[in-house]
Amino acid sequence: MKNISDLGERKAIQLIANILSKGEVAVGIGDDCAAFEFGDEYLLVSTDMISEKNHIPPVMKPWQIGWFIVAINLSDLAAKGGRPLGLVLSLGLPKKISVQFLKELIRGADDCSKFYGTSIVGGDTKESEDVTICGTILGRVKKNEFMSRRGAKPGDVVAVTGTLGKAGAGYYALKYGKQDKKLLKGLLEPIPRIKEGRMLAQEKFVTACMDISDGLSSSLYQLQTINNVGFTIEKEKIPISQMLLNCLLEKDLEIYEYALHFGGDYELLLTLPSDTVDQAITSVARANNCLTIIGKVTKEDKITLIEGKRKKILPDKGYEHFSRNKLC
Amino acid sequence: MKNISDLGERKAIQLIANILSKGEVAVGIGDDCAAFEFGDEYLLVSTDMISEKNHIPPVMKPWQIGWFIVAINLSDLAAKGGRPLGLVLSLGLPKKISVQFLKELIRGADDCSKFYGTSIVGGDTKESEDVTICGTILGRVKKNEFMSRRGAKPGDVVAVTGTLGKAGAGYYALKYGKQDKKLLKGLLEPIPRIKEGRMLAQEKFVTACMDISDGLSSSLYQLQTINNVGFTIEKEKIPISQMLLNCLLEKDLEIYEYALHFGGDYELLLTLPSDTVDQAITSVARANNCLTIIGKVTKEDKITLIEGKRKKILPDKGYEHFSRNKLC
Repeated sequence: MKNISDLGERKAIQLIANILSKGEVAVGIGDDCAAFEFGDEYLLVSTDMISEKNHIPPVMKPWQIGWFIVAINLSDLAAKGGRPLGLVLSLGLPKKISVQFLKELIRGADDCSKFYGTSIVGGDTKESEDVTICGTILGRVKKNEFMSRRGAKPGDVVAVTGTLGKAGAGYYALKYGKQDKKLLKGLLEPIPRIKEGRMLAQEKFVTACMDISDGLSSSLYQLQTINNVGFTIEKEKIPISQMLLNCLLEKDLEIYEYALHFGGDYELLLTLPSDTVDQAITSVARANNCLTIIGKVTKEDKITLIEGKRKKILPDKGYEHFSRNKLC
Repeated sequence: MKNISDLGERKAIQLIANILSKGEVAVGIGDDCAAFEFGDEYLLVSTDMISEKNHIPPVMKPWQIGWFIVAINLSDLAAKGGRPLGLVLSLGLPKKISVQFLKELIRGADDCSKFYGTSIVGGDTKESEDVTICGTILGRVKKNEFMSRRGAKPGDVVAVTGTLGKAGAGYYALKYGKQDKKLLKGLLEPIPRIKEGRMLAQEKFVTACMDISDGLSSSLYQLQTINNVGFTIEKEKIPISQMLLNCLLEKDLEIYEYALHFGGDYELLLTLPSDTVDQAITSVARANNCLTIIGKVTKEDKITLIEGKRKKILPDKGYEHFSRNKLC
């Protein structure tokens, strides 16, 4: 009998989606958030779970665990242009967990919520073998501001917010036992792009958007499947985090391994018409961040990476549960 | 340093609530659902997590696990009088789980959702050590139909829907290795009281309501604390499940141990003005269920159990995580 490790995460999600009945939801499985109609708005909802053995390295402080679970939930909302309404948090905790650990975890979750103008409104506490935390974010967005994963058209350009490789630099520090707090922060204290998402959503010209929590290459392959398009990505245009550059110096191959394929950078990946690029850059600048054009949407059913004069097919090596690379 | 097992679940929740910042939520931590204002309605949200070692006995079939997680989430909504909008489901699954297990689990979750006119609209799949499932339910209710936990007044009567001890009978079967599917169903396939909740909510006279997933005694103690009242409960009026009666026959003590203190009966516990009792009974009958008056709300700060001519203080022995009795 087949195990889910033979499927991998994306095929498991497809299998789940095929079984489930379709409800009266405006946007269902396959986007960063589900969306329900509420007058001229969408009510957005998304959920994310983390567990000790798979996502929480021993170096991660309880405050960071709390920050992390809220941040990764907010990131899904950011990718749809949503404003946060509130979160619920389910905690599965072993009996032996100290009260101090619980306090710090909740402080981290509260600090992240407050930072983004929202709050934790409820939850559940259960006993479990491993620390397991599940967050669910609720948000709202005007229907005409909602940024779907679906809508990328040939001729559009491809852009990312911020820089890539921050989480990779943190992972590098972790792997080689470097106690560099700044580097670790890139992995353990992600900054969801709520403001950037709101700015872009209000412009109403983004054709498709998702967060790149699974890595750039994996995210591009997901957009390709949904939109039935291809991409050409210019390697030299990919904005690499200074943190990662400092770590790896001349190791060009490794730099791009982290920047292209490593999950954990909670930036936004989007497509937009080429004549809106200047406005989009100005818009993201208002959120004190950069937007970088890294390629374009094509008709061809493939993702090409351009390195100078060479072209190659971008491998799909992003983070995937059940079967692939892991954080810890 | 203190561990959370020294606190118990309710004190842990209190500790969490004390740390968290207050958001713009209409109803926050401490009720069955949180509630956000949306025009003349409340958007309701609640979350529940279960994990293999603590809530999923080996005899439980994957279909039942799926049904269970959806049902217990719906029960929180039922207690507020809400109509379900949809659910998100996070699955933490070990690699070794079979594809067949996943399919059956999703079918169970989908069947329960469909039965209650709703659907699963999104989720997350993650690798974990133990099977861990977190559901979050969204629903809506008119503001003037919302049934809070807060509002019980001295002079009100106390009522429960359905019968108590169904889960206890299932636990009894489990404990003594009886392969009686009907008995196990009471524990493993709970029936949330969505219709009953809707019927009662529309009457607008319920003063306080919660589900009794933690057991009757524990639920009464929670209502006592919130409302600063007391209760007198007439033992002989408590509606005992025929299943439990059949199991235990003459063992009066054990029957009431299960019916009063054992968690897992997803019935509604409510208070209402005494002159609305007939209307409430008629109303719940429209949902093909019974409403039984089991006692009254008092001014005194205690919960008294009346057995014939004897009175005693009802012990608070309900299900509590981290420190108390467990299902498996």
